[in-house]
Amino acid sequence: MRDPKAIFEPRNVVLIGSSALAEEFGMASPQLFENVAFNMKKFFKGKTFILDAGKGRVTRNLAEACRRSQLAVIALPPRKSISFLEKGAALGVKTFVLIAGGYSDKQRSKLLELKAKYGIRILGPNSIMGVLNTANGLNTTFARDTMPNRGNIGVVCQSGGVGASLLDWACFNKIGISKLAFVGDKIDIDDADLLRYLGDDKDTKVICLYIEGVKRGDVFLKVASRVVEKKPILVLKGGATEESAQRAKSHTASIVGSDEVFDAVFKKAGVIRVGDIEELMGSAVALSKQPPMLGDNVAVVSNVGGPSILAADAVVRHGLKLALLSEKTRAKIEERFSGVDATNPIDLVADARGDRYSGVLRLVLADHGVDGVLVINMLKSTFFEPKDAEVIPKAAARYPDKPVVDVPMGGEDFSLVQAVLGPSRIPLYDIPEKAVKALKALRSYGAAVARH
Amino acid sequence: MRDPKAIFEPRNVVLIGSSALAEEFGMASPQLFENVAFNMKKFFKGKTFILDAGKGRVTRNLAEACRRSQLAVIALPPRKSISFLEKGAALGVKTFVLIAGGYSDKQRSKLLELKAKYGIRILGPNSIMGVLNTANGLNTTFARDTMPNRGNIGVVCQSGGVGASLLDWACFNKIGISKLAFVGDKIDIDDADLLRYLGDDKDTKVICLYIEGVKRGDVFLKVASRVVEKKPILVLKGGATEESAQRAKSHTASIVGSDEVFDAVFKKAGVIRVGDIEELMGSAVALSKQPPMLGDNVAVVSNVGGPSILAADAVVRHGLKLALLSEKTRAKIEERFSGVDATNPIDLVADARGDRYSGVLRLVLADHGVDGVLVINMLKSTFFEPKDAEVIPKAAARYPDKPVVDVPMGGEDFSLVQAVLGPSRIPLYDIPEKAVKALKALRSYGAAVARH
Repeated sequence: MRDPKAIFEPRNVVLIGSSALAEEFGMASPQLFENVAFNMKKFFKGKTFILDAGKGRVTRNLAEACRRSQLAVIALPPRKSISFLEKGAALGVKTFVLIAGGYSDKQRSKLLELKAKYGIRILGPNSIMGVLNTANGLNTTFARDTMPNRGNIGVVCQSGGVGASLLDWACFNKIGISKLAFVGDKIDIDDADLLRYLGDDKDTKVICLYIEGVKRGDVFLKVASRVVEKKPILVLKGGATEESAQRAKSHTASIVGSDEVFDAVFKKAGVIRVGDIEELMGSAVALSKQPPMLGDNVAVVSNVGGPSILAADAVVRHGLKLALLSEKTRAKIEERFSGVDATNPIDLVADARGDRYSGVLRLVLADHGVDGVLVINMLKSTFFEPKDAEVIPKAAARYPDKPVVDVPMGGEDFSLVQAVLGPSRIPLYDIPEKAVKALKALRSYGAAVARH
Repeated sequence: MRDPKAIFEPRNVVLIGSSALAEEFGMASPQLFENVAFNMKKFFKGKTFILDAGKGRVTRNLAEACRRSQLAVIALPPRKSISFLEKGAALGVKTFVLIAGGYSDKQRSKLLELKAKYGIRILGPNSIMGVLNTANGLNTTFARDTMPNRGNIGVVCQSGGVGASLLDWACFNKIGISKLAFVGDKIDIDDADLLRYLGDDKDTKVICLYIEGVKRGDVFLKVASRVVEKKPILVLKGGATEESAQRAKSHTASIVGSDEVFDAVFKKAGVIRVGDIEELMGSAVALSKQPPMLGDNVAVVSNVGGPSILAADAVVRHGLKLALLSEKTRAKIEERFSGVDATNPIDLVADARGDRYSGVLRLVLADHGVDGVLVINMLKSTFFEPKDAEVIPKAAARYPDKPVVDVPMGGEDFSLVQAVLGPSRIPLYDIPEKAVKALKALRSYGAAVARH
């Protein structure tokens, strides 16, 4: 079967909407059509043929547009969408994105009939926001003038709302995205197809899924297992409880299994399950910037006492371990940096500046009993200056097999250090709890890779 | 015993530090002394007598300063601190804050001896940042030029780092604070003393504790139980695991009990335990702005599908229930707002504006099966405008016995709605998970109040 490459990598795109028609409730509206057109014109590097079904003479332009396009994006109510899909397929377009939902069972059958007849692929219906590719500027979302930075996190999302929120989150926090696809009702192209594509995509290093249900569980498991050998997959599952699962079923017409079944499938495939959107993005950033963690042992290096105790609590609570440093490492640290207590969590004392962080971090990273490091560097109650944080990526770069995450704990403190370390390879978290969840994801991927 | 009122409400303060002396490792330094002096001069409404022990003629000024001050803040190393404490006590000062740590057992004994001899009260040693009162501008922290907004959240903190982080968080996110005390080693004034004071303090509506250990467990339990009848107490416990508890013991010289014991004491007193700093602040804001929740039943009202499913998952995961709306309420909603599915979580559909939110919210809040409401209003994939959010506090105000929290999910979306609702009585969270934790705290307080 034709792979969904044209979904992300069309040379040219035909966009069909209407400046007049609108669904009573839903996603085909003149305003949203105008927004998608705006985004395509502004960001897409190929040519976009914009056809307004609300105006005359569409048919003549349609032939030219379809002849030259690899992808058709249709933002019209069901009946009109089907009609244009059929025309486009007859004119040679092989891949379609159907934005609006609200299809009847009969209309779905018709879509599958057309798929078989013309050998086309369909994303949606109810895709809502379609696709986004930061490499070629493809952006069929109606979040006007919103485009995330280029990056290596690929996202597959079953909900327009969750996807829009992830997009907003990524833009606001400058998290780099490679590709983003909204799968909607998954009548044809599904998670397994997109996983396979993103697994091979050289721009994608980490894959994030938001899933409410899976239609081909066996295929998903097979594809996910293979992809995990190459790159990590994170999943946030909506409808994890019986009550909300019922709602998920009506939301995107998925076949919803019990949460235990999903959990077993995810575990078997080596897919890393997270609990909420913040953990999804925080873990994705960690996996995109840092190596997997190859053992459970975490060292905490901090210039404040209380927060390092909270970090130690979180390490243990999330099933990791507080690393036991060798006597040799401890002796070296305490000898070179008098006043530092080298028992993990390691207290560098409030007057620690970059040099002390650098020296201790290198000794800690060199210790065989340490698999990863959580650094805490507060400013407000200490002598630490934002630029001192530059020593952290430098020390981490010398030990490329051990992950390092950083917690400039607080509000303003976080933003001040983020201004320095944001573009670096060190992921940043505003409280220890979130950093430990990220290390847990790095550990899970380390374990998944070791198993293969 | 003299209550610790003078800690927060002195008319005048004497601040003793040194522009020359410094501890080798620690908190008595010329720079920090200068910062505390800056804060006191800038913010404190009373008179601050600033005495520099590094310069001559301190003794003569000391007599005048101590005669007129109710509180002495001493930012000097142990030996010098004790010496000035004794002089100050002899000159009539009754309350002392000792900033620096590093006291020997003998020096601690000396402090307690002086306490008995002069009938004084001592906060610390190792208080690090001392006290802060937004009502009179008292601010002995060395976070230069940092003062949170006036508000009704009182904080008692055993760690300088955690406290500084809470202070930073509050300032950055414009969370109003009434009083903040750093208890440090708790040689004299402890959590129970401060709880009793904050329990009676009319400016304080919610109390937040960060605790690593408790010295008088029976007194704590008794005082906390009484305070909970008047206002909620939230606690974040550091050293929750055996390994980190060991560290906590050395950090603030507390007697540390097993985590199970603490949990039982907190439960018995009706103190609400939280897992991390963000949950502490998020729950405190909810408790300061909204009524306790008197039952388990949560209604979710949303303009997006996926996020409302994640909210429903979180509701169930945190031990709350999805409210079952009456047939009458459902019929009314679906009759008045065609297209809306009134099964909880209630989907208002992406084109919902303020009027639909207002109408549905009022019907939902009026339903006897609903104890609290979680609203989700995304902007990015919907027609919702930030100013539409103004209907939420209006609807909530009509049902003052049922809490309402709001999730403008995402990054920019959150900040846009925050600009509108920030000063309102509706607490805001960027993901459903955090809003549900806040509802859980409101529910816990509702249960604690009902028990009394």
